[in-house]
Amino acid sequence: MNINCLFDSGNIEVIDASDSKAIKLAIRNDSNSEFKQWFHFRGHGEIGKTYNFEIINAKECSYVDGWKDYQVVASYDGEYWFRVHTQFDDNKLLSFSHQLEQPTIFFAYFEPYSYQRHLSLIHQAQHSELCQHHILGQTVDGHDIDLLIIGDESRERKIWVTARQHPGETMAEWCAEGLIERLLNEDDALAQSLLQDAVFYVVPNMNVDGSIRGNLRSNAAGANLNREWQSPSVKNSPEVYHVRNKMKEIGVDAFLDLHGDEGLPYVFVAGCEGIPSYDGRLKNLEEEFSSILKSVNPDFQTEFGYDKDEPGKANLTVANAWVGEEFKCLSLTLEMPFKDNANLSNKETGWSGDRSYLLGQTLLNPLYQLVKKLR
Amino acid sequence: MNINCLFDSGNIEVIDASDSKAIKLAIRNDSNSEFKQWFHFRGHGEIGKTYNFEIINAKECSYVDGWKDYQVVASYDGEYWFRVHTQFDDNKLLSFSHQLEQPTIFFAYFEPYSYQRHLSLIHQAQHSELCQHHILGQTVDGHDIDLLIIGDESRERKIWVTARQHPGETMAEWCAEGLIERLLNEDDALAQSLLQDAVFYVVPNMNVDGSIRGNLRSNAAGANLNREWQSPSVKNSPEVYHVRNKMKEIGVDAFLDLHGDEGLPYVFVAGCEGIPSYDGRLKNLEEEFSSILKSVNPDFQTEFGYDKDEPGKANLTVANAWVGEEFKCLSLTLEMPFKDNANLSNKETGWSGDRSYLLGQTLLNPLYQLVKKLR
Amino acid sequence: MNINCLFDSGNIEVIDASDSKAIKLAIRNDSNSEFKQWFHFRGHGEIGKTYNFEIINAKECSYVDGWKDYQVVASYDGEYWFRVHTQFDDNKLLSFSHQLEQPTIFFAYFEPYSYQRHLSLIHQAQHSELCQHHILGQTVDGHDIDLLIIGDESRERKIWVTARQHPGETMAEWCAEGLIERLLNEDDALAQSLLQDAVFYVVPNMNVDGSIRGNLRSNAAGANLNREWQSPSVKNSPEVYHVRNKMKEIGVDAFLDLHGDEGLPYVFVAGCEGIPSYDGRLKNLEEEFSSILKSVNPDFQTEFGYDKDEPGKANLTVANAWVGEEFKCLSLTLEMPFKDNANLSNKETGWSGDRSYLLGQTLLNPLYQLVKKLR
Amino acid sequence: MNINCLFDSGNIEVIDASDSKAIKLAIRNDSNSEFKQWFHFRGHGEIGKTYNFEIINAKECSYVDGWKDYQVVASYDGEYWFRVHTQFDDNKLLSFSHQLEQPTIFFAYFEPYSYQRHLSLIHQAQHSELCQHHILGQTVDGHDIDLLIIGDESRERKIWVTARQHPGETMAEWCAEGLIERLLNEDDALAQSLLQDAVFYVVPNMNVDGSIRGNLRSNAAGANLNREWQSPSVKNSPEVYHVRNKMKEIGVDAFLDLHGDEGLPYVFVAGCEGIPSYDGRLKNLEEEFSSILKSVNPDFQTEFGYDKDEPGKANLTVANAWVGEEFKCLSLTLEMPFKDNANLSNKETGWSGDRSYLLGQTLLNPLYQLVKKLR
Ligand SMILES: [Ca+2]
Ligand SMILES: [Ca+2]
Ligand SMILES: [Ca+2]
Ligand SMILES: [Ca+2]
Repeated sequence: MNINCLFDSGNIEVIDASDSKAIKLAIRNDSNSEFKQWFHFRGHGEIGKTYNFEIINAKECSYVDGWKDYQVVASYDGEYWFRVHTQFDDNKLLSFSHQLEQPTIFFAYFEPYSYQRHLSLIHQAQHSELCQHHILGQTVDGHDIDLLIIGDESRERKIWVTARQHPGETMAEWCAEGLIERLLNEDDALAQSLLQDAVFYVVPNMNVDGSIRGNLRSNAAGANLNREWQSPSVKNSPEVYHVRNKMKEIGVDAFLDLHGDEGLPYVFVAGCEGIPSYDGRLKNLEEEFSSILKSVNPDFQTEFGYDKDEPGKANLTVANAWVGEEFKCLSLTLEMPFKDNANLSNKETGWSGDRSYLLGQTLLNPLYQLVKKLR
Repeated sequence: MNINCLFDSGNIEVIDASDSKAIKLAIRNDSNSEFKQWFHFRGHGEIGKTYNFEIINAKECSYVDGWKDYQVVASYDGEYWFRVHTQFDDNKLLSFSHQLEQPTIFFAYFEPYSYQRHLSLIHQAQHSELCQHHILGQTVDGHDIDLLIIGDESRERKIWVTARQHPGETMAEWCAEGLIERLLNEDDALAQSLLQDAVFYVVPNMNVDGSIRGNLRSNAAGANLNREWQSPSVKNSPEVYHVRNKMKEIGVDAFLDLHGDEGLPYVFVAGCEGIPSYDGRLKNLEEEFSSILKSVNPDFQTEFGYDKDEPGKANLTVANAWVGEEFKCLSLTLEMPFKDNANLSNKETGWSGDRSYLLGQTLLNPLYQLVKKLR
Repeated sequence: MNINCLFDSGNIEVIDASDSKAIKLAIRNDSNSEFKQWFHFRGHGEIGKTYNFEIINAKECSYVDGWKDYQVVASYDGEYWFRVHTQFDDNKLLSFSHQLEQPTIFFAYFEPYSYQRHLSLIHQAQHSELCQHHILGQTVDGHDIDLLIIGDESRERKIWVTARQHPGETMAEWCAEGLIERLLNEDDALAQSLLQDAVFYVVPNMNVDGSIRGNLRSNAAGANLNREWQSPSVKNSPEVYHVRNKMKEIGVDAFLDLHGDEGLPYVFVAGCEGIPSYDGRLKNLEEEFSSILKSVNPDFQTEFGYDKDEPGKANLTVANAWVGEEFKCLSLTLEMPFKDNANLSNKETGWSGDRSYLLGQTLLNPLYQLVKKLR
Repeated sequence: MNINCLFDSGNIEVIDASDSKAIKLAIRNDSNSEFKQWFHFRGHGEIGKTYNFEIINAKECSYVDGWKDYQVVASYDGEYWFRVHTQFDDNKLLSFSHQLEQPTIFFAYFEPYSYQRHLSLIHQAQHSELCQHHILGQTVDGHDIDLLIIGDESRERKIWVTARQHPGETMAEWCAEGLIERLLNEDDALAQSLLQDAVFYVVPNMNVDGSIRGNLRSNAAGANLNREWQSPSVKNSPEVYHVRNKMKEIGVDAFLDLHGDEGLPYVFVAGCEGIPSYDGRLKNLEEEFSSILKSVNPDFQTEFGYDKDEPGKANLTVANAWVGEEFKCLSLTLEMPFKDNANLSNKETGWSGDRSYLLGQTLLNPLYQLVKKLR
């Protein structure tokens, strides 16, 4: 089988592809980093023939838990992505097999979101009268850090949304796309009412370098951006550095940081319970946000999630903790699954770009209901 | 100017179209009825020339209030409908003028929804595995009465939605389309969760004859279907007769009847407070429905609406009252404006098909939140 | 089975639909006419069940030859039309059977082209700067006779295209749509070059009344429009009357009249060899037209077609003969099959709307190559 | 102004962007090569403000003639590309100015065709039953060399089409897309008839590395692929090496190599008149090809073009000459303009992707008419 990953977000190392019964592959490390788990490659073989793939370093990947009950995503046309049954033997490797319906197939850790699509999103959005495109600075590799300002900057509440600090969490940008497009829909009463009270600052891709490079979590310099918020460096984490500066300039009244979780098959949020300034107001806002989101989108739930931080034990290098502490505002990390939502399973696609998009649209509902209470 | 209304839902009478400065038109009565207000015609003239139109019997129309602050809808391509400024002099006529950008233009009372689109809606929907098409019987003119059953008929709760008993209230079918398409979206967590507990019976057009004939409120026999629910006749109101029979066979746990209101520039509901069986349970359900809908769609409001019936004074010939009394269930008439939503005005389009569609999607939210409480 | 034909171009009479093994149907006569062969109806039954249909008056239809090797067209969604195997026993009836994949299915003699789509075609076209919409007058039923003028009226050559004099020949309007949309494509070098020398006058539907009524060949008054060109009456054949008048006003340098043929499974043209003025110039133009069209669209052929008229024996009541004689110009009837093109068979769809559309596009090729020779 | 070219086919060097009245830019050399002329960058500034751009090394670019009467292409959304007036002072620089309608704009030498779109083209095409995707080998950078085989390999005639040996000639891939999609249209009688006699081997992008890198003419190793056909090296010109090998394996009965010409504002072909084997048969085929193409697509012409080679003086390192000599077959280089087609000017877009696409569709016409004469 011919295997190639030389394209946007490609990541695979071919160990031995000579035997279709055991194509041995390895996932490359992130740039300047030990992280690894994202993969994306194209395989070319014979129609009708079955190929067996083995990711031999699955056990050394960052989130071994992520492989349990995981199904690889695959696509013949690069548009429709389906799931392929996958096995993980704890002591060995991740394997899956597939009989080709067409000669050439893409496999990935999750439905990709390309830089080309990112540029389209930005450039389509700027056409709206509701939206302006800003550039905050450049990444380590020199890409522009794109910010969309949606609504009227004179509105009282400033709501920030960032996505894809971890570039392999592509569901985060699908989710941002849903949120952005709903905000720009002039017929959507909730979106337009929300924009009466708030203006949005959206960074749909915080880590363009890592996205293009096919990293799971790191930027080009090897930094985990979501551990850089306390003291970002213009050299190693300019993406955080510039966004943080703009936040300080503008202010933040609510913050959503969009992510994917490798292990848990659920959609959930993590809050600020461990930050020094945490109080009843923030607790109420967090609880109301979750309660409203759950009521409008049952893909969201509150039963499963991360363990809560002890009071005062928050890691302030993390975006949502730093923002929560700095601005004393509602500040949440939203997590979506790489696997499926175990509560509402879709056997064909698992969790997907489309479902992330719809989730992004419904994120406006709790913001609308809470906007006047944010301060 | 050449004026023609010989097409789906066409209605106008040309009194004198010889003088472009005063084209005199009249609205025809509904079939076998005194009702009249819907109009829909095509005018053909010269690009760049301004035409003045006068509807000379505006004052004799069914809802004279409907002409106050009313803007006529117009379209060059039959897809994009914009508003044209309109004047109503209480003692005289409705007039509007327009400079032609293309030679041929449609004018209508509201954005039309053709029988051809109705057939497409039905036939596209039946392709979904979630949906079956049924035919309940035939109208006075002999058209099929189309019912879509969405979801699994074994589910506990039966939710009925009817639209366009009054055929000129085309926003009702746009709204039904939004509701139907959301239910059929397999990625929509709320819709699919709702279908775990409920099955929908949707009649997207209760009055096909009147729709095609260009009536405002009557069917082909001259019946106002929304006054026929206590004793419909197979001869004069077969549309109600057959739907009522199916309701009795299946049962009803919630009912939404979709309408447009000529006068009020708001979206609102009318409930069952006047039916004999009205009680705290129904009152709570109605209030919760409104409260939830308002929270997810600010196009909906509860400040403006119809006067409430006195206890026991409901008109049980009206669909929502009859259903509420018969099935002791949540039963609402939803009203949308012909004008604009005064709370969230769109100067270009006023209230529109697109906004009705989005409202239809959000009708699922209160149903989802209330489904387990419906009985 | 529930059978209904109360919609645009519907035509069927239910004799007995009680036995799914032998649903007996008859085709209604055209309005005020003995012609009949077009049918279009919707059947509603049970998924998975097989229904047998018999058209009991097939033998009395206008073109009994048309049933030989004929396959009925069918569609579940009204967009994709496939063929269903059909049997014709010379001495009896036309029969076909089908196992339902969805409850509701359309059957028709050929892929329909609705008046709603006609209106869209006209209104979309008028948006182009290249196109103006004119109304020539009204049909017997009062519908507008729509004319599209494409290009600059000052151009030297006037090319006329008419379609669907026989309303059941819906392929003619699909074909006209292809021709129109290619002319309006500003990137199409051939179309735009042709418009340097010529202006087009296109009547995409000559017989709106018959189209809506579900006729095969007649208008509302029972006239066969393609036998009315010598002395049309404003009362019984206003469609021809008004088009003829406009032709006399404008002139004609080439004329294409688009049709379908019930019997022959081929695309072909009929020329003017029988008109008094026929000469070498017209013969050459006809031969060159055919030769060029064949070279760019192998769906067109010259082997099969109608017998040629004897010199001087042309029927001058027929459009192409009358125009040819009146204007001494290239004047052709183009015929497409109701069945399939036997030379290039498509088992799934037979001849179709899409193929007619592509043929319409390629009609511009011979016109482009001949435009400077037309006079 | 913020200027960035870090994306697919980006190429610009910012000399000084501090003064909006004179933003000084330079075009980078192709990889390992002196060639340069392609540019593609994104500028971000203030809405309503006018920016003046100067390409200071325009005079050192490969085709100085290319700047005469050249208009730069620009796009706000990356989909619709319009032309911006451009000045070239022979002794100095290329300059253009533009008032921003949105903050962020793309400028390029010609409408880009991204690798992402290339992958979509390949993967959509392979879904057709008419098409198989093959990979011939890898480029210098390691990208797959994609070949689409369209039709049945057992057909007698083998027609080869290559595009974009020179990566900055993006019109070549737009043209290939048109040709491919027409071949895959099962309703297109000409395409399907042609596939009865021939099978197509299409390489839509011969130079993926150079395309992504933003080169004008070279591959990653600095090779001008269209001078490598006599002795390609697997190391420096593997793209030619592998295609040539496959040609030798399969045979070639006709060959089209798609290009853009920097200087001439016309569409034209260059033939094989200088190859040793040139004879009357080849001359006739070339003349017939041109004559037919001209008759179906007036964007093509034969008045302007390259000077003809003297007999025996062809450069056999050039693809079409090498193929013509090796296979004694019709072998043509097709050239499209970077500027506009001076014969059929489009002031808004100049020559464009859409026009190249339509040209690609019409390339099938001469092949269809000549297929039986190719040998
Ligand atoms: Ca904007
Ligand atoms: Ca179904
Ligand atoms: Ca126009
Ligand atoms: Ca294939």
